[in-house]
Amino acid sequence: MNWENNVRKVVPYTPGEQPKCGRMIKLNTNECPYPPAPGVKKLLESENYEDLRLYPSADAGELVEVLAEYYKVKPTEVFVGVGSDDVISMAFLTFFNSDKPILFPDITYSFYPVWADVYKIGYKTKALDENFRIKKEDYLEPNGGIIIPNPNAPTGVLESLDDIEEIIKSNPDSVVMIDEAYIDFAEEGTSALSLVEKYDNLLVIRTFSKSRAMAGLRVGFAIGNEKLIKYLNDVKYSVNSYTMNRPSLVLGVEAVKDDEYFKATLKKIINTRERMKKELTALGFSFPDSKSNFVFATHKTAAAEDIFKYLRSKQIYVRFFKQPRIDNYLRITVGTDEETDELIKELKSFL
Amino acid sequence: MNWENNVRKVVPYTPGEQPKCGRMIKLNTNECPYPPAPGVKKLLESENYEDLRLYPSADAGELVEVLAEYYKVKPTEVFVGVGSDDVISMAFLTFFNSDKPILFPDITYSFYPVWADVYKIGYKTKALDENFRIKKEDYLEPNGGIIIPNPNAPTGVLESLDDIEEIIKSNPDSVVMIDEAYIDFAEEGTSALSLVEKYDNLLVIRTFSKSRAMAGLRVGFAIGNEKLIKYLNDVKYSVNSYTMNRPSLVLGVEAVKDDEYFKATLKKIINTRERMKKELTALGFSFPDSKSNFVFATHKTAAAEDIFKYLRSKQIYVRFFKQPRIDNYLRITVGTDEETDELIKELKSFL
Repeated sequence: MNWENNVRKVVPYTPGEQPKCGRMIKLNTNECPYPPAPGVKKLLESENYEDLRLYPSADAGELVEVLAEYYKVKPTEVFVGVGSDDVISMAFLTFFNSDKPILFPDITYSFYPVWADVYKIGYKTKALDENFRIKKEDYLEPNGGIIIPNPNAPTGVLESLDDIEEIIKSNPDSVVMIDEAYIDFAEEGTSALSLVEKYDNLLVIRTFSKSRAMAGLRVGFAIGNEKLIKYLNDVKYSVNSYTMNRPSLVLGVEAVKDDEYFKATLKKIINTRERMKKELTALGFSFPDSKSNFVFATHKTAAAEDIFKYLRSKQIYVRFFKQPRIDNYLRITVGTDEETDELIKELKSFL
Repeated sequence: MNWENNVRKVVPYTPGEQPKCGRMIKLNTNECPYPPAPGVKKLLESENYEDLRLYPSADAGELVEVLAEYYKVKPTEVFVGVGSDDVISMAFLTFFNSDKPILFPDITYSFYPVWADVYKIGYKTKALDENFRIKKEDYLEPNGGIIIPNPNAPTGVLESLDDIEEIIKSNPDSVVMIDEAYIDFAEEGTSALSLVEKYDNLLVIRTFSKSRAMAGLRVGFAIGNEKLIKYLNDVKYSVNSYTMNRPSLVLGVEAVKDDEYFKATLKKIINTRERMKKELTALGFSFPDSKSNFVFATHKTAAAEDIFKYLRSKQIYVRFFKQPRIDNYLRITVGTDEETDELIKELKSFL
């Protein structure tokens, strides 16, 4: 017997590769191809470095308030964390403590089973149908909690708000988390945020890493009723009082304030995505209709892994998952128009 | 029955107050009274804001490497996190999974029992003696892990490295964590870092929040043998792949590089501390000898709570713990010389 017997042994999540070569096209981790709001640059230059010696606000009040204002909720209905991963991890720890298993789709964000394992939460996966859609009946059985990403990753598929609502409504004994990391790339009116006042068991999770171009700053948030947020904060204050550092608070606030830039960036990405869909179709690819900032594509003849390797040799990084049901698909982030041109050019030359 | 039945209900840690008034003297959370290394200012101004759209390195490699070089260990022996709170929290989750209780002093960093509670780890506290010293025999009984802060907070007392070593050596079946948040304010040769190569069950934890003047940046780290660090990283990658944001990595590296500034800052604080001790003694205070950046003082006649309230009315914030055994003590951070003059002046006028 030694200390190793008492170690929590886990199989950790594998994040997408972060290659460090000079010239490359990075379409593998769904980052935004455009920089954050220009005001962020100014703030970065003028930030009072002397304040770095002082603790940040423990409640991240400045960021919570600007988010509450933007999403028209109360500050007591907003929780912020170090990326949505931190928020979801904390929410698993807080809300998923039942004897019954939690439920999520079989093809989804691969961090869900990892969080379940690290916190020793039982889970059951529910198979998506052949079009990568959720079967809502799957989520009506007894459970200890539910997490559904909408749009889903890595498929990009958006479920209807009616189906989402039915799942929330049918599970008053469970917290239902809707992970909306990519919802800003879908049409308005598709977010479950509109249901927050109606259901006290709903937690909606968002991130600054995709649509707000701030993956490097690590900011995510959740919106839900006051009781949920209070429980979440209690656990957060039992783990780390000061999770958000000063730069993330100051720059995060600025990113929310510049709504014009935000909307313009979204529009550019959505336009590029729609063009990319057409070009991919013309090349013989098919994909579920994407409402996110990536396309999950399979080719009628070429193997995904071969395409992945070829693109990589050309310094174009996309994501390939060697997993059942999706091992002939590539998840390709929507880049700039120039990056998309380059991608299409290389795909043509390979095919 | 509803979703609230499955909530992890906890009594969270209460961080020191972060008042937001203009003119104030803040001696309540052991921050550094001087700004971070001047290079940090330059980097802040020149940081490439466009990179904020990209994820940081998941392994925080740049920061890990500079710390390994500075402390003359291998990069595989270094773990970094969002302040030492994040590091310790992750270490509790990783290493304290025994049926036996973990052990720590009764008077100590009040976050330890909170982490134990949130992760459902049983614990036993061991009473410090009447001089606030650890009795090493207390830590020789069967246990599921040990955490000892050295110097201790809020007392400032430094235990001898021989005693610390005996505890580590006598507990090969437990991970022993030495929380050295304040060790930079003690003499050289007092740190357990020198024992890391000798004992594979030793984890030494440090922070940038005190001696490196970066509480606002949230950077902490642990040094231990490769096996410990590997287990810790596995859990970290099961909670949040990217805990350290880009500003914390870039600025953190710079703070470590400027050793001259670091040493000069330490010297100033230690000099002020020694002067402050003399002045407090002259005013009728007594305290255990502090090897940290605060003094834990009690007055021969005046009640700590009354002094606390008076100072507060003068916008001087110190820390008062309404807890058994220490409710007649004040923990006073060592500020600048000017702040110390002001503190002494106000204490005189109260007494």
